[in-house]
Amino acid sequence: MKIKINASVMGATGYAGEELMRLLCSHPNVKINSAVSKSFGGKQMSDVYGSYLKNDIALDADYSKINKNNTDVVFLGLPHGESIKITPLFIERGIKVIDLSGDFRYADTKIYEDWYGIEHTQKELNKKAVYGLPEFYKDEIKTADFVANPGCYTTTSILALAPLLKDALIDAEGVIIDAKSGVTGAGRKESLAYSFCETDENFKAYSVPKHRHTSEIEEQLSIISGKKITLLFTPQLLPVKRGIFASIYAKISKENIENAVKDSYASAYNSAVFTHVLPKGKLPELKFVTGSNNCIIGYEISERTNQIIIFSCTDNLIKGAAGQAIQNMNIMFDLKEDTGLSKIGRYL
Amino acid sequence: MKIKINASVMGATGYAGEELMRLLCSHPNVKINSAVSKSFGGKQMSDVYGSYLKNDIALDADYSKINKNNTDVVFLGLPHGESIKITPLFIERGIKVIDLSGDFRYADTKIYEDWYGIEHTQKELNKKAVYGLPEFYKDEIKTADFVANPGCYTTTSILALAPLLKDALIDAEGVIIDAKSGVTGAGRKESLAYSFCETDENFKAYSVPKHRHTSEIEEQLSIISGKKITLLFTPQLLPVKRGIFASIYAKISKENIENAVKDSYASAYNSAVFTHVLPKGKLPELKFVTGSNNCIIGYEISERTNQIIIFSCTDNLIKGAAGQAIQNMNIMFDLKEDTGLSKIGRYL
Amino acid sequence: MKIKINASVMGATGYAGEELMRLLCSHPNVKINSAVSKSFGGKQMSDVYGSYLKNDIALDADYSKINKNNTDVVFLGLPHGESIKITPLFIERGIKVIDLSGDFRYADTKIYEDWYGIEHTQKELNKKAVYGLPEFYKDEIKTADFVANPGCYTTTSILALAPLLKDALIDAEGVIIDAKSGVTGAGRKESLAYSFCETDENFKAYSVPKHRHTSEIEEQLSIISGKKITLLFTPQLLPVKRGIFASIYAKISKENIENAVKDSYASAYNSAVFTHVLPKGKLPELKFVTGSNNCIIGYEISERTNQIIIFSCTDNLIKGAAGQAIQNMNIMFDLKEDTGLSKIGRYL
Amino acid sequence: MKIKINASVMGATGYAGEELMRLLCSHPNVKINSAVSKSFGGKQMSDVYGSYLKNDIALDADYSKINKNNTDVVFLGLPHGESIKITPLFIERGIKVIDLSGDFRYADTKIYEDWYGIEHTQKELNKKAVYGLPEFYKDEIKTADFVANPGCYTTTSILALAPLLKDALIDAEGVIIDAKSGVTGAGRKESLAYSFCETDENFKAYSVPKHRHTSEIEEQLSIISGKKITLLFTPQLLPVKRGIFASIYAKISKENIENAVKDSYASAYNSAVFTHVLPKGKLPELKFVTGSNNCIIGYEISERTNQIIIFSCTDNLIKGAAGQAIQNMNIMFDLKEDTGLSKIGRYL
Repeated sequence: MKIKINASVMGATGYAGEELMRLLCSHPNVKINSAVSKSFGGKQMSDVYGSYLKNDIALDADYSKINKNNTDVVFLGLPHGESIKITPLFIERGIKVIDLSGDFRYADTKIYEDWYGIEHTQKELNKKAVYGLPEFYKDEIKTADFVANPGCYTTTSILALAPLLKDALIDAEGVIIDAKSGVTGAGRKESLAYSFCETDENFKAYSVPKHRHTSEIEEQLSIISGKKITLLFTPQLLPVKRGIFASIYAKISKENIENAVKDSYASAYNSAVFTHVLPKGKLPELKFVTGSNNCIIGYEISERTNQIIIFSCTDNLIKGAAGQAIQNMNIMFDLKEDTGLSKIGRYL
Repeated sequence: MKIKINASVMGATGYAGEELMRLLCSHPNVKINSAVSKSFGGKQMSDVYGSYLKNDIALDADYSKINKNNTDVVFLGLPHGESIKITPLFIERGIKVIDLSGDFRYADTKIYEDWYGIEHTQKELNKKAVYGLPEFYKDEIKTADFVANPGCYTTTSILALAPLLKDALIDAEGVIIDAKSGVTGAGRKESLAYSFCETDENFKAYSVPKHRHTSEIEEQLSIISGKKITLLFTPQLLPVKRGIFASIYAKISKENIENAVKDSYASAYNSAVFTHVLPKGKLPELKFVTGSNNCIIGYEISERTNQIIIFSCTDNLIKGAAGQAIQNMNIMFDLKEDTGLSKIGRYL
Repeated sequence: MKIKINASVMGATGYAGEELMRLLCSHPNVKINSAVSKSFGGKQMSDVYGSYLKNDIALDADYSKINKNNTDVVFLGLPHGESIKITPLFIERGIKVIDLSGDFRYADTKIYEDWYGIEHTQKELNKKAVYGLPEFYKDEIKTADFVANPGCYTTTSILALAPLLKDALIDAEGVIIDAKSGVTGAGRKESLAYSFCETDENFKAYSVPKHRHTSEIEEQLSIISGKKITLLFTPQLLPVKRGIFASIYAKISKENIENAVKDSYASAYNSAVFTHVLPKGKLPELKFVTGSNNCIIGYEISERTNQIIIFSCTDNLIKGAAGQAIQNMNIMFDLKEDTGLSKIGRYL
Repeated sequence: MKIKINASVMGATGYAGEELMRLLCSHPNVKINSAVSKSFGGKQMSDVYGSYLKNDIALDADYSKINKNNTDVVFLGLPHGESIKITPLFIERGIKVIDLSGDFRYADTKIYEDWYGIEHTQKELNKKAVYGLPEFYKDEIKTADFVANPGCYTTTSILALAPLLKDALIDAEGVIIDAKSGVTGAGRKESLAYSFCETDENFKAYSVPKHRHTSEIEEQLSIISGKKITLLFTPQLLPVKRGIFASIYAKISKENIENAVKDSYASAYNSAVFTHVLPKGKLPELKFVTGSNNCIIGYEISERTNQIIIFSCTDNLIKGAAGQAIQNMNIMFDLKEDTGLSKIGRYL
């Protein structure tokens, strides 16, 4: 018999929320129960996104409709700070939660508090949250009731670095992540800085040198590698709608590591459904991944300078948000991991 | 029991071919038997499009593998003139054919010969071809073995005009179609004219005043409306990858036709799966349709000048090519018409 | 001896204002006295536009600094309605005014009031305003103290149509202007509709069927041709930063008018410094004009439908605003008409 | 009396050549004698770039017209390898040469031979070439007959790093340059890789880890700093037409260097006409420089990791090619350094 999952979405009209709605609409095992939008409750999805005219969905103003009888899982596409407040309600009601915010992504809530400037008032609940990166935590996700879905820069960076740090093929010190993000990463808002005329044909860095995702990347890489990792992360704005492209630099820890790198990645990702590492010297392009849930990684070694350069790409709205959330749901509900998720990018 | 269709694709590495491959890969009732590429036979799809790295497909150099035992339907994504030569082979072998070229789109092969400058050597076979526009020929498509899939400009224009011409709400004379196309419409080729530096931030018209699609639009509108239609069609190049946006101007044939227009469209499209007409005064945007198989139409009436202005949008690679081909396949094989096709555009 | 013009600018930080500042900075005969910005007075130009870091200018909060001793001409880059209020002050002080708003562009203030919804409180002053389209009003501009600078859509459309209407080569009825504008046309503002993610890869029409510029185009064409012109004008948003591309359709009034069209344009523009008409069949592209003060026009004749199709392009911020304002200033101050203005577009 | 320089251009129809033509056309002291294009000789500039319709120039097929009587300076916009052959002819004829290729940029021709794979057959002439970076070699340029104009990536990188390396504020080892270039950097050619559909909304790295410019940057930084510099340089393709944005990472050599960095840059560039360093923490954007001859530099210090991050931007066609060539010409002919060159970027 076909599994049917009742899903509800909080924050359905943000860019990540819309992506989630679109993907859930075509997921063969999902029925959407409630799509909540604080700003547009009472309207139709097509009032906000004309792309829904032939497949419309009513928007609720709040979560009063969501309960255990009609909802198996709720996705939270809310601003940081909001998830802390609302998650306990759903957990108490016995509803599984997949949270796309940063609120429950940290093992150490002190780091969260330092980098987000928000007091973490749910420290006990935080312990139950599983970090939703299936490449490293699939077993935990399987049995989880509560998943904290990783960020876009974070996913892209961790997948590139974790195997090599764990296997001590690169120095734990001095790692540099020069990352570029599409404009959807800034969310949907009225803003001169993200207007077409200010963004098109432009490029710039922002939040240098202490963007929040630095701390999430460092904590996860430290946990996975067993070493204290401190690194430099530079986010930059690309004049494209979606996609993360991270150019990562690290010192190689010994000579002739080419095969070791290959083996390290193979052992980490050979059974990964969406993460793929190219042979040395073959480099990925952003359009290899946009529109898919994939993370594609390529690398080259500079013998002149004893460095490895790793290029890692994801679609920030899919593997970096909505797609990974659905991948987590699939795992939690024992579906095939790629159900409803594309493994082919939209090249065009 | 689940229907399984064995499909083969000729011309799998052109832009329309790639879109077809991507859509067929996620179609729940399709198995791809052979993907033929003259230029890249022997290679993998991912050698041509890096977006296939996690879902790769071997490319055949020719169609020798395609036969009735392994192929129920073959899609032809070939240059004009090539389909004339190859279609008879497949039809003889008892394989259904969906041809994306212009070769078999005309009831009157003389028009084809005049506008394409190619002798039509398959006049008998041409009579068997059904024009694959489901909004008007669904019954014929259901029982067809051979479908000629309409062009992108053509589909977008006909869907906007046919009901109003048929119901005599607009003048048969003086219709103007000012159409804008994304750059994928020019196909995949090495060309200075379509290079990034020449196309980005640019806009231009081409093939004025006698683009081939003029004749296809005129013939179909004449057939559907029962009147001889002669019109002016202006194709223009938009600096976007995909999408057709047609701004269409016509004289209204009498006063107070607002309700008649509404009824005309309603009667034509109320049961259409992908075609949607907005209420008067609500206008579509290109991004309402890109990524979907939809055609979204909006209109406004200028009482000052007694004209109707109709805006019609499609994704040139989907409703204007690969998606409509699959819609036709679904109808031919008695599947739900929207199987494997999206009704939600990719807004982002 | 070299002429030196003291110029002041009201509204220096809007998009048209910024373009004016940039052009005036490199004009060999201009010294900028005061650059006024209501929003950014007290700051530096580089605080608003980082492009001024090496050539910075202090912004004044109001026009108190502007008087006859330090200012020969003031440019008004203000919202519609504001120029009505402020122009009298400058005229009284004996300062020449070049107004970029729509406030004084109409011979008949009733039309302005109908289409702008603003009462025109300066009807006497309005009579003194010269319509600043040098191709048709150069003699009047030479001796003018007050010039109303035409709009961007307007300039582009009038230059294409006026000669043919005046010489009765096209029908006065049924003219259609399908116009496309770059996003700077919407001005500098916080707005979701003009954000990168909503505009890039998109295309849409707006203000259909009664955009304000319709009335300005109609009035000027009526004055120049001596016939009452009523036409349909459709503005649309192109995903480019700057440029107007108008595709214009008209019935030709007799057969074999090819030479007459050529002669009509030649007689109108052979001595024009910036307006250029291509031979029949050669079509312009947007990038032929962006970055220059040019208007480039091309046309084709459809004998099948007895129509002429005219394509007319300008840079909306230059010939459609700041550049034409400077052209008018050059004429008013007896400088060479192209002083400080480029006749070569920025192709790249 | 006004100086008048007779200039000729070899390679006038490449992207850098066109930029040179456009800038020279508006230079108040230049008269263009001959514009040579191997591919388009005999045609008009407007046949190749429609932007020249109102300011056209005849193209010569070869350099036979160029001699000492009509040409004071010749600009070479030729492919690498061609300048080696042709420069001696002009030098012998007593014509000053400004070469935009890489052929004469190296003090050590062995490095050139290694990285370009071309034998350097003009080693004596190479000694006479002055490296045309005015910020460091103005005195030599003043008296030079032959200038080798630096590359785009090179100029952008050297200006950011040279002062700090010279003043020993950063480690000579471990410098990483993560650079992004607009597509004009690839030149004007028919190529699928640079087509609109393959480039728009994409991002990728190329020539990793040994792009030719690495060696030019290293040699110049070694010369200026007096230390052997080996670094890692990663070029990447931005979906914009023009501009270089380099994100540069270096270890800081001691604590509390903030003031030292400020002083180092101030002492290097306080009298620079086009190079500008922002205060710590203020970061440049690409659009601050495009359209101008400026190089704008910003930086931030990461105390957590003891690194400085420097962002340096130029317009690859101006400060990275044609503009710097004209700056060199101005210096060679004793004109004001910024004559005919813009210090205000084209923000829009």
